[in-house]
Amino acid sequence: MPEWIYGRHAVEEALKAGRRKVFRVLRVDSSKQPGSARDRTAGPRADDSQEGAAPVLPKGVAIERVPASQLDALTHVGHHHQGIAAEVSPFPYIGLSDTISLCKGAGERALVLVLDAVQDPQNFGTLLRTSEAVGVTAVVMLDRRQVAVTPAVSNASAGAVEHLNICLANNLARAIDELRDAGLWVYALQAERGASKYTSTDLRGPLGLVVGSEGRGVGHLVRQHCDGALEIPMQGKIESLNAAVAGSIVLYEALRQRGT
Amino acid sequence: MPEWIYGRHAVEEALKAGRRKVFRVLRVDSSKQPGSARDRTAGPRADDSQEGAAPVLPKGVAIERVPASQLDALTHVGHHHQGIAAEVSPFPYIGLSDTISLCKGAGERALVLVLDAVQDPQNFGTLLRTSEAVGVTAVVMLDRRQVAVTPAVSNASAGAVEHLNICLANNLARAIDELRDAGLWVYALQAERGASKYTSTDLRGPLGLVVGSEGRGVGHLVRQHCDGALEIPMQGKIESLNAAVAGSIVLYEALRQRGT
Repeated sequence: MPEWIYGRHAVEEALKAGRRKVFRVLRVDSSKQPGSARDRTAGPRADDSQEGAAPVLPKGVAIERVPASQLDALTHVGHHHQGIAAEVSPFPYIGLSDTISLCKGAGERALVLVLDAVQDPQNFGTLLRTSEAVGVTAVVMLDRRQVAVTPAVSNASAGAVEHLNICLANNLARAIDELRDAGLWVYALQAERGASKYTSTDLRGPLGLVVGSEGRGVGHLVRQHCDGALEIPMQGKIESLNAAVAGSIVLYEALRQRGT
Repeated sequence: MPEWIYGRHAVEEALKAGRRKVFRVLRVDSSKQPGSARDRTAGPRADDSQEGAAPVLPKGVAIERVPASQLDALTHVGHHHQGIAAEVSPFPYIGLSDTISLCKGAGERALVLVLDAVQDPQNFGTLLRTSEAVGVTAVVMLDRRQVAVTPAVSNASAGAVEHLNICLANNLARAIDELRDAGLWVYALQAERGASKYTSTDLRGPLGLVVGSEGRGVGHLVRQHCDGALEIPMQGKIESLNAAVAGSIVLYEALRQRGT
């Protein structure tokens, strides 16, 4: 089923990545509704100076100028579409065997983020954005009980997801076993007795990092299949960080240790 | 003017911190509406096992059990109130001179986050949550053109803001000058020609970190008053990180370098 992705970054990155089929690209025609259309593109990430920059379109696809109300109706996200949306084929997930091959190809540099039931689309998108920035080999997530790569997630990731290898696994514990068999050290990001401080742990070799949901952390069974747990020290009175922030901090610590 | 803060963490931390006057604490009476009330407290951060844990209340204040519809009407946030809200006095900001005193008291450990027009309440709250976790001395923000510490921000910070020293400055450039006069090195978090890699910069002494809005970065005038710029390396195709994530990564690098 085709879906409507929206927002300047999400649409541009989907077009750049070229992995999804693009059926239509719609842009709000500000000439027809000067006042309201301008308001509608004035979201936090809108950038008027780039309004006219034409994305590279696949052959046979032209930008259609439409009234803002049409984008509102297609995307169901109020003004968050920033005046642009595209109808595209579903997100192209990869399988677990592809993921293992990518890890073997990456060798010592393999870096996999495993998501155990991260539920909030904003956190999910933010963490995927960091994952793309540090150059992860792949992201592995459960094919149910987890928000999928919806248009909201693509938007929250600023389009980063369009460049990522994302694997839907039907059993996370088994996926972790296979990653470990392929040579990765897999750590759960979890404050628990015996957890290692993330900055005192060698994160330079092939690495898997499991991030759980904010309320419940990493599930018991999933945790049992990991090599250990990593903990981020906290100096204040609050007991945990935002899940996307916590994952991002450890991913960047891995990058720092790898000296890139 | 009193305001209604909501969500389990925000209300609990406001009560623990004891800095705001508390006028009323309302909790959804699940015994009256077993089905709907349970649904209403089942948000991503809800934790049924703690539903019965009584927060420590100031003298003369008792928890009032109310129907969910009453909390919906008072907080205007759908089910995000998680079944609990409190009417409290406004957030207790500190002034710039207090901030400078705190920095002098902190000596070499002084760490100040300066926010230049961070606009999204979710990002703002998330960054404040990390700030509390690393133990910042204070947060400085502009008293206009910037989202204030609203109930939505307190909620997004998981209540962390209730423990933070937050200064409203009427001129950010002047505030930065005063911080530098007090001995802090102040860096703008900004990718620009000549910016230093954040991991190659000594962040151990008294430090100020300026984080800008996601779209526009740190303003030109504010940037001119800083000692330099710090940059986070990016390996992928997307050009920037989420603003709250970027700030969090540098705050935690400062903590790592300080060896705590």
